[in-house]
Amino acid sequence: MLERWMPGLRWMRDYRREWLRGDLFAGLTVGVMLIPQGMAYAMIAGLPPIYGLYSATVPLLVYAVFGTSRHLAVGPVALISLLVNTGVGALAGGDPAVFLAMAILLAAMVGIFQLAMGLLRLGFLVNFLSHPVISGFTTGAALIIGFSQFKHLAGIPLPSTQQLHVLLGALFSQIQQVHGVTLGLGLGAIALILIGKRIDPRLPGPLLAVVAGIAVVQLLALDAMGVKIIGQIPSGLPQPGLPFAAEALQRYPDGLWSVVRHLAPIALTIALISFMESYAVARAVQRKHRNYEVDANKELIALGAANIAGSFFQAHPTTGGFSRTAVNEQAGAQSGLAAIISAALIALTLLFLTPLFHSLPQAVLAAIILVAVYGLIDLKEVRYLYRNDRRDLFMLIATFAITVTLGVEAGILAGVALSIADLVYRSSRPHYAVLGEYGGKGIYRNVQRFPEAIEPPNTLILRPDGQWFFANASFWQQAIRENLAARPGTRVLVLDAATISAIDSTGLHSLQDVWEELQREGIALRLSGLIGPVRDKLEHAGFFEKLGRNHVFMTLQEAVAGRHANEASVSAAVRTAPRT
Amino acid sequence: MLERWMPGLRWMRDYRREWLRGDLFAGLTVGVMLIPQGMAYAMIAGLPPIYGLYSATVPLLVYAVFGTSRHLAVGPVALISLLVNTGVGALAGGDPAVFLAMAILLAAMVGIFQLAMGLLRLGFLVNFLSHPVISGFTTGAALIIGFSQFKHLAGIPLPSTQQLHVLLGALFSQIQQVHGVTLGLGLGAIALILIGKRIDPRLPGPLLAVVAGIAVVQLLALDAMGVKIIGQIPSGLPQPGLPFAAEALQRYPDGLWSVVRHLAPIALTIALISFMESYAVARAVQRKHRNYEVDANKELIALGAANIAGSFFQAHPTTGGFSRTAVNEQAGAQSGLAAIISAALIALTLLFLTPLFHSLPQAVLAAIILVAVYGLIDLKEVRYLYRNDRRDLFMLIATFAITVTLGVEAGILAGVALSIADLVYRSSRPHYAVLGEYGGKGIYRNVQRFPEAIEPPNTLILRPDGQWFFANASFWQQAIRENLAARPGTRVLVLDAATISAIDSTGLHSLQDVWEELQREGIALRLSGLIGPVRDKLEHAGFFEKLGRNHVFMTLQEAVAGRHANEASVSAAVRTAPRT
Repeated sequence: MLERWMPGLRWMRDYRREWLRGDLFAGLTVGVMLIPQGMAYAMIAGLPPIYGLYSATVPLLVYAVFGTSRHLAVGPVALISLLVNTGVGALAGGDPAVFLAMAILLAAMVGIFQLAMGLLRLGFLVNFLSHPVISGFTTGAALIIGFSQFKHLAGIPLPSTQQLHVLLGALFSQIQQVHGVTLGLGLGAIALILIGKRIDPRLPGPLLAVVAGIAVVQLLALDAMGVKIIGQIPSGLPQPGLPFAAEALQRYPDGLWSVVRHLAPIALTIALISFMESYAVARAVQRKHRNYEVDANKELIALGAANIAGSFFQAHPTTGGFSRTAVNEQAGAQSGLAAIISAALIALTLLFLTPLFHSLPQAVLAAIILVAVYGLIDLKEVRYLYRNDRRDLFMLIATFAITVTLGVEAGILAGVALSIADLVYRSSRPHYAVLGEYGGKGIYRNVQRFPEAIEPPNTLILRPDGQWFFANASFWQQAIRENLAARPGTRVLVLDAATISAIDSTGLHSLQDVWEELQREGIALRLSGLIGPVRDKLEHAGFFEKLGRNHVFMTLQEAVAGRHANEASVSAAVRTAPRT
Repeated sequence: MLERWMPGLRWMRDYRREWLRGDLFAGLTVGVMLIPQGMAYAMIAGLPPIYGLYSATVPLLVYAVFGTSRHLAVGPVALISLLVNTGVGALAGGDPAVFLAMAILLAAMVGIFQLAMGLLRLGFLVNFLSHPVISGFTTGAALIIGFSQFKHLAGIPLPSTQQLHVLLGALFSQIQQVHGVTLGLGLGAIALILIGKRIDPRLPGPLLAVVAGIAVVQLLALDAMGVKIIGQIPSGLPQPGLPFAAEALQRYPDGLWSVVRHLAPIALTIALISFMESYAVARAVQRKHRNYEVDANKELIALGAANIAGSFFQAHPTTGGFSRTAVNEQAGAQSGLAAIISAALIALTLLFLTPLFHSLPQAVLAAIILVAVYGLIDLKEVRYLYRNDRRDLFMLIATFAITVTLGVEAGILAGVALSIADLVYRSSRPHYAVLGEYGGKGIYRNVQRFPEAIEPPNTLILRPDGQWFFANASFWQQAIRENLAARPGTRVLVLDAATISAIDSTGLHSLQDVWEELQREGIALRLSGLIGPVRDKLEHAGFFEKLGRNHVFMTLQEAVAGRHANEASVSAAVRTAPRT
């Protein structure tokens, strides 16, 4: 019972000694990644770097207990940090203390939304982001995040914006303000990470860049030359954050409640997007293991709990990230213990190592971000869709275009809206085929694709591909009418109905209309291969009774011949489930 | 060429002498109906009765030339008049001259929207109103129109509202203000119409009620007793309306442009709803005739032209109506000439007969409306859906409830939104079946419905019912995984793919994932009966190449056996259309 709500208890109970090695190695590897990534992503969010480390402690522990994935590495991620930055930035009015308080409050609100969605079993919503939409959206967000880092990478002043053209415009107009030494440091860090990757993918390149960056700054006293460094970082574990944030915001002009109302749409967006990102990666990794199941609704609850608990300890919104999760799995993680070890490493860093990061140049963090988001730019999918699905390519490009011009929230919304509009439009004009006998052995094929297939005399065999429902009921009637008109003298219409996947009441009405029209013209209607749910509907609506049960056949061959193979198949063709 | 844009020219060219009798009789019958109905529907719209007659002239003539239906009776209809009343009423601020000018301007805007939609070929939009949504909406609107007529039927003061509860509340609180003589007249008129219908459905009951009402009022001098009569009606044909309306509205506080902007959403709503009502009835009547075709896009153009032209001659928005069209067809109309005759009768009335209507009591017009809208209340559909489709019943009730509480526009929008949401939700969890051999003759059926069907050893046969696309890709993967997990030792997965009506790029990705998973577990994948468009996609994506073409079969029987029937069927199973 308790395990139903806390799936983490299962691996704790079943823990095997041989898992420890993998968990330890993976936990330390991810922890070492988290130190620079956490700080970098806090920078994207517009927060002091230390808050990235705070966000890399409590949420990981909570997820280890409530999460259904044993490999998901929760923590700060680039995309969500970008959403925090632009969403909160618009409200905070340039006051860093208010900005921080809002970011922490936002984490609590994101968590509450996720928890509520999980309890309401809305996890199925994840289905409504199609592959092209995610791809266009991620690529757009990666470009925005990437270019915005030139502020830190090259010391060019840039506005905080989600609009790529604004960003690029500012970048070009300010290009003369580039700070040479900073840019050199940043490019050096990028080179170091890329070379490290080339040598051995398991090398913690970002950490090496951090160490090298600190060393170079200290040796050459670069901070005196205008290189921006992180500066003083307080040491110690995160103190209660949400209560202080709530108190700070009470002094806000219209009070805390007004802040909550303004943050709500941002929180909802982050709740959905971060769930989708996290769920996608958790599912991808789970497929390789199979000793556990990832459940969408429980994942929502777990991420919600992680965000709520995190907000009490100064965390900004967190979720499961792509890159760290992949590393965690590759490094041999077997259970949530790996995440607990990562969190412990961050906690030790917070307690003892923060003074070391004083001289870390911001350009190195920017370099880490640039390398990370470069991997999110998905040109392979563009090529794939160009070859295989132009419609989906259009979705990708539209989502991308809206993301980079109107911002990531508009992009994701437009992508979902486009996908649904496309579904509706496609459903309204489904495919169908006129069949003929192919090879003379009772095999029937589309006569347009198989010109050697022969239509039986005075018989039209039509195969409607897809459901028969309100959005296409008139389409089907029209298709039948046109094909009959093109074949004068037709005495029998056989509907190869196995492909009718569902029928609704509008479809029922229209099928009855079709039958009445056929009756008036003296054309017989025969149905073959109806699937169970459609049989049930037709039976309950009394249509079999009207049509005559002997006009319903199990197979297309029987229907074309107009003869049932035997007694049993007469009743089997119209067999229905008891009404529920 | 000219006939493509003016389908009416065709019947004019082909006109046969034997049609004349039917056209003449039908045209006169509908014209006689139009006199009281036009005045009554103008009253619903909140306009002086004469404008209903104006709306029954020019639009009919224009539709006769541009329309594709030869039976559609265009003119004022109750539902659209209600939309005009509430839509314009909110803007006009109680000034009758402004109200009138807005109603005429609205007709022009409705026409422009319809014309534009027709030229943009948006006629397919009509598909997105499902049967239950239309039914719930019409029933709700009928109740609102009906109860609002108690103002005229019984002399009870009522507010102009689309909210049924407000209307009923006012009705009950003002019930003591009922005007006895008026109510008596109204009930008498209802009785006369109903009795007339009983005796002979072809009797022009409303006209009889009008004549009787005028006679009674004049004989007993009822207007002196407080019975509201129509009063002075100007005679003569309609004079230019749109120019005067535009001029009047230029003196409106924020100018004409502001009025146009405010009317735009109402105009769009009316454009859509009136098109849908009209198209539905035109199609229903066309089915019985077949000597012409009704084309959605051309209908939009024709209705648009009728509304624009009408607005130049003082018409408010018009469309094809249910009841008059049915009467037109039953009375024997054969071509658009019938409509031209109706319009001519109205023109003669306007020229010579308007003085006769001076003493017509408003209660009689209210009685005519009540009888008409009573026929729109669709309880049969409620019973039908209760038995056959509870989901669709819910749609009907939800649309009805929103229509009567929030108004007809909200109702129709909510209905469409609900229908699309339902489509999306259903698509995300499609039906599927595990198949077994039934009767041992190569016939396969769902093992849950046919317990006597036997699953082949070590083989799982799965039939996915419906498309494989972004909203259900993970559902299919999960379904396959679960069914394999429930059958350890499975060596072969056969997908009976004939029922996969389409696949998109997300579906392709997930099918490849499935194949990779199966490979890792040493399970063979076989596909059977793929339809053409899906074959094309799989071929172009290189999936057949990966899977091995010999794993694709024409029939399920071959796939289960793992043997192709002959050489020809190997290539036929993967035959694709040339890439377009």
